[in-house]
Amino acid sequence: MTQVAPQIQAQAQAQAREDFEARLRRIGAERYHDLHPFHGLLHGGGCSPDQVRAWVINRYYYQHSIPMKDAAFMSRVESPDLRRAWRSRIEDHDGCAGNEGGIRRWLRLAEAVGLDPDYVASCEGVLPATRFAVDAYVRYVRDKSLLEAVAASLTELFAPAIHASRIEGLLQNYDFADDSSLSYFRKRLSEAPKDVAFGLKWVLDHADTAEKQDQAAKALIFKTDVLWAQLDALWGAYVEPGRIPPGAWVPGEGMADARAA
Amino acid sequence: MTQVAPQIQAQAQAQAREDFEARLRRIGAERYHDLHPFHGLLHGGGCSPDQVRAWVINRYYYQHSIPMKDAAFMSRVESPDLRRAWRSRIEDHDGCAGNEGGIRRWLRLAEAVGLDPDYVASCEGVLPATRFAVDAYVRYVRDKSLLEAVAASLTELFAPAIHASRIEGLLQNYDFADDSSLSYFRKRLSEAPKDVAFGLKWVLDHADTAEKQDQAAKALIFKTDVLWAQLDALWGAYVEPGRIPPGAWVPGEGMADARAA
Repeated sequence: MTQVAPQIQAQAQAQAREDFEARLRRIGAERYHDLHPFHGLLHGGGCSPDQVRAWVINRYYYQHSIPMKDAAFMSRVESPDLRRAWRSRIEDHDGCAGNEGGIRRWLRLAEAVGLDPDYVASCEGVLPATRFAVDAYVRYVRDKSLLEAVAASLTELFAPAIHASRIEGLLQNYDFADDSSLSYFRKRLSEAPKDVAFGLKWVLDHADTAEKQDQAAKALIFKTDVLWAQLDALWGAYVEPGRIPPGAWVPGEGMADARAA
Repeated sequence: MTQVAPQIQAQAQAQAREDFEARLRRIGAERYHDLHPFHGLLHGGGCSPDQVRAWVINRYYYQHSIPMKDAAFMSRVESPDLRRAWRSRIEDHDGCAGNEGGIRRWLRLAEAVGLDPDYVASCEGVLPATRFAVDAYVRYVRDKSLLEAVAASLTELFAPAIHASRIEGLLQNYDFADDSSLSYFRKRLSEAPKDVAFGLKWVLDHADTAEKQDQAAKALIFKTDVLWAQLDALWGAYVEPGRIPPGAWVPGEGMADARAA
């Protein structure tokens, strides 16, 4: 073994850490679902009201599964410190004193686009492909290493940009969009950065070998697949060819006015 | 409680059993993936060589997961009799003395359509949505009741018809089709009926309340979703709009001649 001066070693480590972070960010630049054409359609005002509804219904399934994912993670963490740091994610979604929580905010968006929030919350009309993708993520976090589970959460690195452009695009293009209906996204603008700063540091600290860095990168790629597959399913069912699978939501179902009538 | 003559009770039970079987068969008639337009395209000769390859690559992932599903089932079965009855399914796919097994037969089909069987076996180019759907099935069998697991396998009730029409359609319409490349399907024509006769009897015997019948019916519906979602994913990526998700197989990749060259 050669002796390396401690200073040079520290420099090399800092460089490796920087390279690894750049690698993770590149995964987002290449595969995050902001690149999916459905988002172009949605943010540019090209979605019909029913296409927006289909998105709201299916994306709800993702939202409502995220706290299950985070609980699965916590159920495997032995360090109370890490558990505590993670717990705020569940609170952000499920709500707590002084915070209605992201899931209720999402249901306000559902109401704003004319859907019955109880119908959306029932998850009845969700596309099977949405379920499969989202459930795959929950299981992934339950089964894989903690490093992979945290790394998979790092798509949040790329979320603030998409949320900001979504708020702008929806406000510009759709009547239903206002401060109340879009509060989910606005709230995430402040919540996500603290989560992801923690998650990124944790991954950079713990992926301390090339093998672990590969695992973490693979986990992040997996997560981008989970997000992308949801939009592909939406596209196939409600845009092109527009073939709705048996049992999934059909326009007209689950509307708020049907309940009032 | 009213006293019912044993004969009348037996008649009522036989009728309930018959009604339940009819209900299960109706699920197939309404939701089995023989109804999916991709199969019309494939069996009618409307698929391009690359579309056939995409189907072979993705369907391989399903094939190769089925023994994992069956092992997950067996790992939860306490009765050696039931385990033994089930074990032949794994042998049918993975092979045993005197039977190369369905997975190797599938790889012969892969070769016949010009693919490198090692590439197909690597599962590298499989669509994420295929993985999610198939993995959902494996997990389902690992997590749910034995009744639900067996009921989910009953899509095999509907398989012989699709295999027969597939053999006929492929032979008529594609040069690659011959006895060797289609041996997977021909073999399944004799294997599936014994499995499904066992599975159907087991479900009819064990679903002895309305609640259990509902569970079993729901399990079969779930399984039809798993199959349907795979074809939807194939359609979206390789037919219409033909947008291949990042990382999935792109025509030209994984060809046998590339390896020979």
